[in-house]
Amino acid sequence: MTKNPEYPSWKQKLQFIVEHKYFSRFIIILIMFNAIIVGIETYPSIYQDNQMLFFRIDVTLLWIFSIEIMIRLLAAPNLRAFFSNGWNWFDVLIVSAGHIFAGAHFVTVLRILRVLRVFRAISVIPSLRRLVDALLMTIPALGNIMLLMSIVFYIFAVTGTMLFREVAPEYFGSLQLSLLTLFQVVTLESWASAVMRPIFEILPWSWIYFVAFVLVGTFVVFNLFIGVIVNNVEKTEEADKEIKDTHNEVLELRKELSEIKVLLEKQLK
Amino acid sequence: MTKNPEYPSWKQKLQFIVEHKYFSRFIIILIMFNAIIVGIETYPSIYQDNQMLFFRIDVTLLWIFSIEIMIRLLAAPNLRAFFSNGWNWFDVLIVSAGHIFAGAHFVTVLRILRVLRVFRAISVIPSLRRLVDALLMTIPALGNIMLLMSIVFYIFAVTGTMLFREVAPEYFGSLQLSLLTLFQVVTLESWASAVMRPIFEILPWSWIYFVAFVLVGTFVVFNLFIGVIVNNVEKTEEADKEIKDTHNEVLELRKELSEIKVLLEKQLK
Amino acid sequence: MTKNPEYPSWKQKLQFIVEHKYFSRFIIILIMFNAIIVGIETYPSIYQDNQMLFFRIDVTLLWIFSIEIMIRLLAAPNLRAFFSNGWNWFDVLIVSAGHIFAGAHFVTVLRILRVLRVFRAISVIPSLRRLVDALLMTIPALGNIMLLMSIVFYIFAVTGTMLFREVAPEYFGSLQLSLLTLFQVVTLESWASAVMRPIFEILPWSWIYFVAFVLVGTFVVFNLFIGVIVNNVEKTEEADKEIKDTHNEVLELRKELSEIKVLLEKQLK
Amino acid sequence: MTKNPEYPSWKQKLQFIVEHKYFSRFIIILIMFNAIIVGIETYPSIYQDNQMLFFRIDVTLLWIFSIEIMIRLLAAPNLRAFFSNGWNWFDVLIVSAGHIFAGAHFVTVLRILRVLRVFRAISVIPSLRRLVDALLMTIPALGNIMLLMSIVFYIFAVTGTMLFREVAPEYFGSLQLSLLTLFQVVTLESWASAVMRPIFEILPWSWIYFVAFVLVGTFVVFNLFIGVIVNNVEKTEEADKEIKDTHNEVLELRKELSEIKVLLEKQLK
Repeated sequence: MTKNPEYPSWKQKLQFIVEHKYFSRFIIILIMFNAIIVGIETYPSIYQDNQMLFFRIDVTLLWIFSIEIMIRLLAAPNLRAFFSNGWNWFDVLIVSAGHIFAGAHFVTVLRILRVLRVFRAISVIPSLRRLVDALLMTIPALGNIMLLMSIVFYIFAVTGTMLFREVAPEYFGSLQLSLLTLFQVVTLESWASAVMRPIFEILPWSWIYFVAFVLVGTFVVFNLFIGVIVNNVEKTEEADKEIKDTHNEVLELRKELSEIKVLLEKQLK
Repeated sequence: MTKNPEYPSWKQKLQFIVEHKYFSRFIIILIMFNAIIVGIETYPSIYQDNQMLFFRIDVTLLWIFSIEIMIRLLAAPNLRAFFSNGWNWFDVLIVSAGHIFAGAHFVTVLRILRVLRVFRAISVIPSLRRLVDALLMTIPALGNIMLLMSIVFYIFAVTGTMLFREVAPEYFGSLQLSLLTLFQVVTLESWASAVMRPIFEILPWSWIYFVAFVLVGTFVVFNLFIGVIVNNVEKTEEADKEIKDTHNEVLELRKELSEIKVLLEKQLK
Repeated sequence: MTKNPEYPSWKQKLQFIVEHKYFSRFIIILIMFNAIIVGIETYPSIYQDNQMLFFRIDVTLLWIFSIEIMIRLLAAPNLRAFFSNGWNWFDVLIVSAGHIFAGAHFVTVLRILRVLRVFRAISVIPSLRRLVDALLMTIPALGNIMLLMSIVFYIFAVTGTMLFREVAPEYFGSLQLSLLTLFQVVTLESWASAVMRPIFEILPWSWIYFVAFVLVGTFVVFNLFIGVIVNNVEKTEEADKEIKDTHNEVLELRKELSEIKVLLEKQLK
Repeated sequence: MTKNPEYPSWKQKLQFIVEHKYFSRFIIILIMFNAIIVGIETYPSIYQDNQMLFFRIDVTLLWIFSIEIMIRLLAAPNLRAFFSNGWNWFDVLIVSAGHIFAGAHFVTVLRILRVLRVFRAISVIPSLRRLVDALLMTIPALGNIMLLMSIVFYIFAVTGTMLFREVAPEYFGSLQLSLLTLFQVVTLESWASAVMRPIFEILPWSWIYFVAFVLVGTFVVFNLFIGVIVNNVEKTEEADKEIKDTHNEVLELRKELSEIKVLLEKQLK
């Protein structure tokens, strides 16, 4: 399964095409064109008059992107190598979904798929891809704090539904609604003026629930952010290792020096 | 009181059970089951039809958790060792409260206790327990800044009550209300649109009070956050110590070297 | 003006009293008592019935604090040493203002002065005093960014008044009002829903003004915060200096070593 | 084009004037005076009575600033050196725009230009200029994350317009409006109470759109901020280089020491 030196020549040719700078530039320009098209489509007056034109452009773009991915797939050493990269999965899904839903009547779904194709800009521009990879990489390290947050959210949501279901049905009417409301509260958006104050007027002890959640919620969210920062600063720890190494080297130096001293003293005698 | 080699064999057996990986997995699954049950209970339509079932599940879970804690207690070398851990206190309190209020008529209290049992997930999953311990550990170091914050809050609350009691009774009607309002203001939630602007229309000088509190309050809160960050970065200070040590070592080295030089010069003469 | 060994014995006695741990503890307890009293005074029902009692407690506290400061003043080597400390200025001002306004009819001013006395907790508790000193110390280093912020605020306030005076008189009616509104906008409180949207409906280009201010304002405020953080981390720079010193020491070491080598080589010849 | 030693003497004289401390102080005072004037102009009662006076002051200030810039231009070694500094461009534009629009009827444009002149305080005060240069310098390093943000904003804006155009025309009526609304949402201002909740009542699945955008948007904005912080902390990396250098020096030292040891051992034989 490793890279073969007796590689078929057509694969080498395809690889040459795929890695050529004009290839990716061409695709980037098409993605930008796709982005502009979906932008213009949001203006009903323009869209209504040129519906057929937009449809043809869309089909053309979909086929070009399909061919591009086919070429990239064929240029890869094998299927496994191609699909080991999450971004290729993303590309294949976005484009094949365009074909699958092509005949369907869910116009909105189709149009959203066309919009999502703009995200391909990330998978095609290497510097953006590296940035998003780096951003996503910080997430698994935060697993524990996210689990903690889920527990806190769940317990407060169940309690909130039990306590305030009758008083504020639009905010705490069901478990789902409570979770949404708590998400709003943790962003501190109208947590007092819209959510707490009306409940507070009927149930004077309800402030305990909200103040507790704001304190716990923002504290945990804040620590989540700290976690991301610390992740970013972790590189500094390499410097710390270097300091430790230098320290050990200096200690070794001293040992050697004292040996020399002993030698010299022997000479003097 | 130290760990005894002549440990009773039944304690050793219990310890083997408690430390077995299936034991804690079983408890984690039960806690998750408990969490799902309290979640479903919030849907009145489901709850009304199966009230008896929910009651029986609850009693069963309470007894399993009671037995689990009893086993853990008996497996511990002695009572003191068991209760020296705050998380064990938490477990015992949550479960025993379930028994104490069992016959009571405060249905809501009972149901909240059942929800709080979900927090046991933290005490049972070691990585979560360590995370929460770490989060709580940062609090005592912030004692001074919290004391400062309390003083600032209290003074502004007393002043606010004195100044705006008549103008805005719903926000500054009493000392407690003022404290709640100031907490809202420090989160910057509707501090101007809902709290200040209506008062400002009647008392044009009132902006001084609010701007001063927003500036002082957010500055202190911000420094509280900085304190948490610095606490997290403090590990770096160990590296600083290492640098200082290396520096001293190098100075010692130099001293030794000059001694050698003197020896050599003596030889040459 | 320097500390005299032939110090009058009564000064030494006063110093002994002032530095005694029970002295400051007694004052802290009185400040806490003062805090509780001003808190209780905010409840009209209690205050009305005991007006005379509250008045007497207040006068007594004021005189005790006056005597305390007199003792501290007399215990100081001289007036200059006493007033070189900003906290002593603060204490003297708070207490003497209580005497000056004593006979006045501005009841509210008097009561606020009594509340401000609670701030003396900061000047009396050394750890709090050091914390506040540290917090205040970070401000002068931010002079430039605050000057920049003032310029940005002033320019946007003048422009805002010119552009939106007629459209939104309650927010941009005058230069002062605009400055207050911009302060609200920079805290992101209702900047869109309450301030921008109503203006936006009449003047469709007004979003440029608000988006520009939110971007510039929060960027500058954010950098102000970064400044505070960097100030807090600056201690690390001492470690950096230590590294530089060590580096130089090592370079010197090498020079000495090569000298030794030359000496040894001479011996061998 | 390089600095000529046979520099015309009138240029040297102009340079002497330009670099004289009283020159820039005089200009700073005039800019402050200009700032006060535009501030006073916002008060209609004062402005109406003294329109002519304000006009004359303005013309005088404009001419003094024009002469100042002319002197600075002539004092520069050549045009290229003068215009290589972005701040000089800024000065020339601000002042020449005052002349160009002088006769025009766009009173508001003229007045805003007069206000913008206050920004010249930044270009004249060196410490402020350095600060703003430093702030602007952090922007290019954030190019990638800003590109990512634009893509996220654009995709959500197009999707939002498609989905909510009919339901909330005031927020998602067109692509521009959606972009403005998303900017409001990313500052977390009334994103739930004003924007999401009314749409949520009609389209119950709409919370997915808003929660997704809040999570992605704030995550990206947060990482943008982290980028700025890391940029500010990057200086520390120089210290890291120093550590690496010291480490290498110490390794060299050890090598030399072992050579000396060999020499000594030879002597002993």
